[in-house]
Amino acid sequence: MIYQDNIVALATPSGAGAIAIIRISGVNAVSICASVFKSVRGKDLARQKSHTLHLGHIVDDGKVLDEVLVSLFKGPNSYTGENTIEISCHGSTYIQQQIIQLLLRKGCRMANPGEFTLRSFLNGKLDLSQAEAVADLINSDNEASHQIAMQQMRGGFSIEIAQLRQELLNFASLIELELDFAEEDVEFADRSQFRDLLEKIERVLKRLIDSFAVGNVIKTGIPVAIVGEPNVGKSTLLNALLNEDRAIVSDIAGTTRDTIEDELIIEGLSFRFIDTAGIRETKDVVESIGIQKTFEKMAAAQVVLLLVDCSKLSDARTLLGVKTEIEKIMNQYPLKSLIVIGNKSDTLDPETLMLLQSEIPELFLLSAKHGSGIEDLKKKLIAFVNTGALRNNETIVTNTRHYDSLLKALEEIQKVRFGLQSGLSSDLMAIDIREALYHFGMITGQVTNDELLGNIFANFCIGK
Amino acid sequence: MIYQDNIVALATPSGAGAIAIIRISGVNAVSICASVFKSVRGKDLARQKSHTLHLGHIVDDGKVLDEVLVSLFKGPNSYTGENTIEISCHGSTYIQQQIIQLLLRKGCRMANPGEFTLRSFLNGKLDLSQAEAVADLINSDNEASHQIAMQQMRGGFSIEIAQLRQELLNFASLIELELDFAEEDVEFADRSQFRDLLEKIERVLKRLIDSFAVGNVIKTGIPVAIVGEPNVGKSTLLNALLNEDRAIVSDIAGTTRDTIEDELIIEGLSFRFIDTAGIRETKDVVESIGIQKTFEKMAAAQVVLLLVDCSKLSDARTLLGVKTEIEKIMNQYPLKSLIVIGNKSDTLDPETLMLLQSEIPELFLLSAKHGSGIEDLKKKLIAFVNTGALRNNETIVTNTRHYDSLLKALEEIQKVRFGLQSGLSSDLMAIDIREALYHFGMITGQVTNDELLGNIFANFCIGK
Repeated sequence: MIYQDNIVALATPSGAGAIAIIRISGVNAVSICASVFKSVRGKDLARQKSHTLHLGHIVDDGKVLDEVLVSLFKGPNSYTGENTIEISCHGSTYIQQQIIQLLLRKGCRMANPGEFTLRSFLNGKLDLSQAEAVADLINSDNEASHQIAMQQMRGGFSIEIAQLRQELLNFASLIELELDFAEEDVEFADRSQFRDLLEKIERVLKRLIDSFAVGNVIKTGIPVAIVGEPNVGKSTLLNALLNEDRAIVSDIAGTTRDTIEDELIIEGLSFRFIDTAGIRETKDVVESIGIQKTFEKMAAAQVVLLLVDCSKLSDARTLLGVKTEIEKIMNQYPLKSLIVIGNKSDTLDPETLMLLQSEIPELFLLSAKHGSGIEDLKKKLIAFVNTGALRNNETIVTNTRHYDSLLKALEEIQKVRFGLQSGLSSDLMAIDIREALYHFGMITGQVTNDELLGNIFANFCIGK
Repeated sequence: MIYQDNIVALATPSGAGAIAIIRISGVNAVSICASVFKSVRGKDLARQKSHTLHLGHIVDDGKVLDEVLVSLFKGPNSYTGENTIEISCHGSTYIQQQIIQLLLRKGCRMANPGEFTLRSFLNGKLDLSQAEAVADLINSDNEASHQIAMQQMRGGFSIEIAQLRQELLNFASLIELELDFAEEDVEFADRSQFRDLLEKIERVLKRLIDSFAVGNVIKTGIPVAIVGEPNVGKSTLLNALLNEDRAIVSDIAGTTRDTIEDELIIEGLSFRFIDTAGIRETKDVVESIGIQKTFEKMAAAQVVLLLVDCSKLSDARTLLGVKTEIEKIMNQYPLKSLIVIGNKSDTLDPETLMLLQSEIPELFLLSAKHGSGIEDLKKKLIAFVNTGALRNNETIVTNTRHYDSLLKALEEIQKVRFGLQSGLSSDLMAIDIREALYHFGMITGQVTNDELLGNIFANFCIGK
């Protein structure tokens, strides 16, 4: 499917830089570019081979706009599958605008968000889940989400789904064939093989659906609530955790702009730290909005870090208060992972510390100020995330749309299996199979519609 | 001159986008890239031709980091003159960092700001003023500054300077030759031809020096002070002026980020509007800081727009106040261009307007609210800038460093000419000629030193 119109967009981040890339795709991409490009060696762009680079000038009405490098890709060997030109120009916003405006006058139109990738999908270069992975890949900011997006973009997820769909489709055909011979009461589809397939599909679907819990957390980060009184050292702890990891990227300009203040990446996994007011300090105003918010934040978190000041635990009342608090959190959020951190452990002697740990066995001692215990805390955090699937390179679902389709597919597959058990007639079973096939197809894009495509690609950046 | 080390940097603007480009330059650029790149067609990068594009994956220790396009340039046919690789990767900041870090581990080092262009200069691909124009080109945000930078980058300025330097050098050689035959009292250099050359050089230098007044204004924008009482319509006027021109670029995402609130580009020239407090309202507190600042801003401006409310001019006292004000500005800033704008002209009938114009002949009537008169005002603003040189495509100096060198060269040339007139001995004259040649050479980089290069390229962005 080749479109008749030619689209253009800036493909590099907006703003000034050394180089900017302007991308054109469409049947006339090469001739449109050739109409404004003068090669320094006098070469005719249209006669050049695919995958070649050409130095020259963009000329508008006799006036040289810029010295550029043109990359030439001939369809179908391009990202979109169409003829594609990438103009590497000097990265001033003025030049970017002038060249784009010139190309618009020469017959291009501005690309919609994600339209290059949409064309790639429509031209069969990528399936839908691969196309979606492109956006995830661009948005990924840590190793885990990057790895999942990369795997999905390379087809890992689609291949698994497409294979199951194909097997199911084979049975669907046989069962539908039976309908044509309904009077003769024949069975083309081997029922026991079919049952095995359904069970296999169910297992895979359940595994994929379960993986979403990890996948979603990986994509959005693991929420960690830090609870503790003012001055117990929450900020010092956060800084101690953050600083070390930030240093890695600090020698590459411009990375700071995109880091979120309270996000920490440990071993490639993103942790989002949620600052909360302490809960003890507002004990007397249980109904206050402040404490309500703290509880809400703790409810949203997967891990709760309760920070206490070791040096104050020698006071029996304080010690009791902390114990009550731990109990309270354990009761209120039984499923949460709670880490009780005894900060300022450097201010106490070893004997007092041992005494404290006998009182509160789960106490994790550290000194945020001096950095001791920080590495162990990171290991403890990592241990809370079930990264088995990730480490084993298994397919992980991160996309809510896929998750929904998988849930619906599972529901239909279970209906089919139940129908099979209860001897449902082929014609009714065929309907459920078609439904399941539909939801499989929605994931990879074998079944699609304009609204769905519109929603997916609207979230892309322009130029991709 | 080929460097032994290999430099790497992000060449596109920082932040996430569809595509990012990572650039490597150096003798081992190709082999370093080949060590982490797996072509999808199994091609060996080192055996490919220059100016070709290759699809493949960046692989770190068996793990695929990204699907990329690699552009291959073999020295000397590259920007730097060295072997150069440009990796087009997906534009996530995570991928950018990972690939750069991988290349650092493989033997690259981070490029310094402007180091690619510095190498281009040191390898003789560009002269120094051309290299400087690259930075100007990236920073230019309007037609005029873009045109000048483009012309300079293509060598217009350098060629003129280099020709004069060569002619001067010829005479210098002849005069220095005379020194070897000092006892014989011969003249190899024709003194009248030499005088003609000196006069020609002086004319060119003066023209270039004069062009700096325009060049500097084009590069930094023409400062325009808007003076007027609160509510006279300053903001409305500014919006009326700004909105129309902004609309041109509004369909290209991300351009707004780089526009300055009060900058307006008319016919390719940048005008910087300086907001001031009115001067009439503080008449009674002449010594106040407010009025002092207004005067400072007016002093810095090249054009002063005095806004008055037409509807209030029917009051004789107000009219007199305006007249006094105009006189005051004219006396205080005799060299400024003053435009007296009668705003809200739509509220008055034609007869009253004619009466007003007879009272204040220079009154320029408009209605900022209804947009009438805005186009004429723009033409009036443009008329204040001497764009003759720009329109005639003459060389314009915009760089302070060049301006300084030109001034010093002119001083030396004038010394030489004076020496020639007063019959100065060849040996003393030769010293002045050498001095002049030195300053010419400083512009194009034939004479240079590390400190100078350091200063110039430190202002570049990384990756260029």
